Amino acid sequence: MEIAVINDKQIPLTQLDPAYLDRGTYFGDGVYEVVRSYDGRIFALDDHLARFARSMREIQITGLDLDHVRKTIRSAFAQAEIPNARIYFHVTRGSERREHAPSPDLAPNFFLTVTEIGDCSARKAAGVKVATYPDIRWKRCDIKSLNLLPNVMARMEAKKKGCDEAILVDEKGDITEGAGSAFFMIDASNRHLITRPLGREILPSITRRIVEQIAPAAGLTVIERTITPRQAKKADELFLAVTTTDITGITHFDEHPIANATPGPYTKALAAEFQKLVKTQTS
Amino acid sequence: MEIAVINDKQIPLTQLDPAYLDRGTYFGDGVYEVVRSYDGRIFALDDHLARFARSMREIQITGLDLDHVRKTIRSAFAQAEIPNARIYFHVTRGSERREHAPSPDLAPNFFLTVTEIGDCSARKAAGVKVATYPDIRWKRCDIKSLNLLPNVMARMEAKKKGCDEAILVDEKGDITEGAGSAFFMIDASNRHLITRPLGREILPSITRRIVEQIAPAAGLTVIERTITPRQAKKADELFLAVTTTDITGITHFDEHPIANATPGPYTKALAAEFQKLVKTQTS
Repeated sequence: MEIAVINDKQIPLTQLDPAYLDRGTYFGDGVYEVVRSYDGRIFALDDHLARFARSMREIQITGLDLDHVRKTIRSAFAQAEIPNARIYFHVTRGSERREHAPSPDLAPNFFLTVTEIGDCSARKAAGVKVATYPDIRWKRCDIKSLNLLPNVMARMEAKKKGCDEAILVDEKGDITEGAGSAFFMIDASNRHLITRPLGREILPSITRRIVEQIAPAAGLTVIERTITPRQAKKADELFLAVTTTDITGITHFDEHPIANATPGPYTKALAAEFQKLVKTQTS
Repeated sequence: MEIAVINDKQIPLTQLDPAYLDRGTYFGDGVYEVVRSYDGRIFALDDHLARFARSMREIQITGLDLDHVRKTIRSAFAQAEIPNARIYFHVTRGSERREHAPSPDLAPNFFLTVTEIGDCSARKAAGVKVATYPDIRWKRCDIKSLNLLPNVMARMEAKKKGCDEAILVDEKGDITEGAGSAFFMIDASNRHLITRPLGREILPSITRRIVEQIAPAAGLTVIERTITPRQAKKADELFLAVTTTDITGITHFDEHPIANATPGPYTKALAAEFQKLVKTQTS
């Protein structure tokens, strides 16, 4: 008789919950998104759904209706009644016996959580420390997939050094992005906001796009080019951009203090512009 | 109230089964092994357990006792009473709310299945077709991790071309390995058995090691060097090595027939030597 063991519990394979046959677990065969709400309203949902659809297309997951996903998100968010919520959702190619090539008729699995985002105002006011780590990820980082072990390893090492985020550095010696965030540098004398151009090496971050959009209002011109750790250490300001905490200033880069070890004036100006946009665009 | 949605079912987050909070699904944060039995006896279990331990160390999963794993495997295998069984097992870093950096005190999750290996004799006698695919995996393919989406993508494309396996080719234009197998070439005139040297680009395959060990008995000298697709197309023989089906001849490489489109004499000799070894070394 075919058997499964979950920790120390032995059961017939036929009695296994489909959760244990999920290709998400066996292969990381799925894609995900994280959306947030501000004060009871979801921010940039259409952007996240569009990226989710693209990720699905890229790995050829079909059979999940995007309008249905949107309704599920709205319904769960309404039910949760959490004003500042993190809405995480993923789709996997489905549940079946482990085999690299999936069955053609497999139904995808959808999963979502709505959880509370704690108050990050103190963390944002203080800024965060970051540490570099080699970018050992796959060659399609533009797909927001569940293959995140290298990101986890990078974040674990950063944490050991007392840092909140790992900044990934590719084999050429250029920064790609944070393990879970976009990375920006400010050249104050030229009023340049510098970030790596999009490509298969980084996620097409939605917060990154919004930051680029509001840059002129903060008096900055966007320059897309690669940045080295050496340049970052000497930067006037550095910050991270990510959905859950939008713009967060960096105070230390590999232990080098940045902008007097406090979020700088341009970072603050961008964060203020971001909040203005949030107020007009949440829905 | 914090909420989860599983497909269309909405439940309070607190009622979520730990299977849905597994870091294996969120991040592919785990490692695995596949062992098989021949005629009621498990083959090369110690080798697989040693590699499993190494994989855990590399990604810093602790708290799983290897002797306990061995006992669990033996017990489940005995219970299953399947003479030719595939024993799959993985460990993930544990279940908790999604956060890249794990809690320090997290207990790992262990999962195992014992399933029947169908009769592959016809497939092995006929040989298999393979197609190349870019190796877009991460930079630590020596770790047998659950981050297998690129392998899945490669296998899916191979299947579309009527092939059983994808042969991965790196950016330099060299073959690394199969999406789920080791790759070998035979130079019959020089009696050379050629395969890529170990490194972070490929899995330290146990079947590969055994093939190298039995090569002299089949009249072959092992040469470890990289192989290009161009060289592979002109090879005297090619074959795959993998735990579940050991040595399987390749009949077509990117549609080029190999060895008259049938498993060649050295491949057959190695397969015969492999079976001899199986009979002496299963336990």
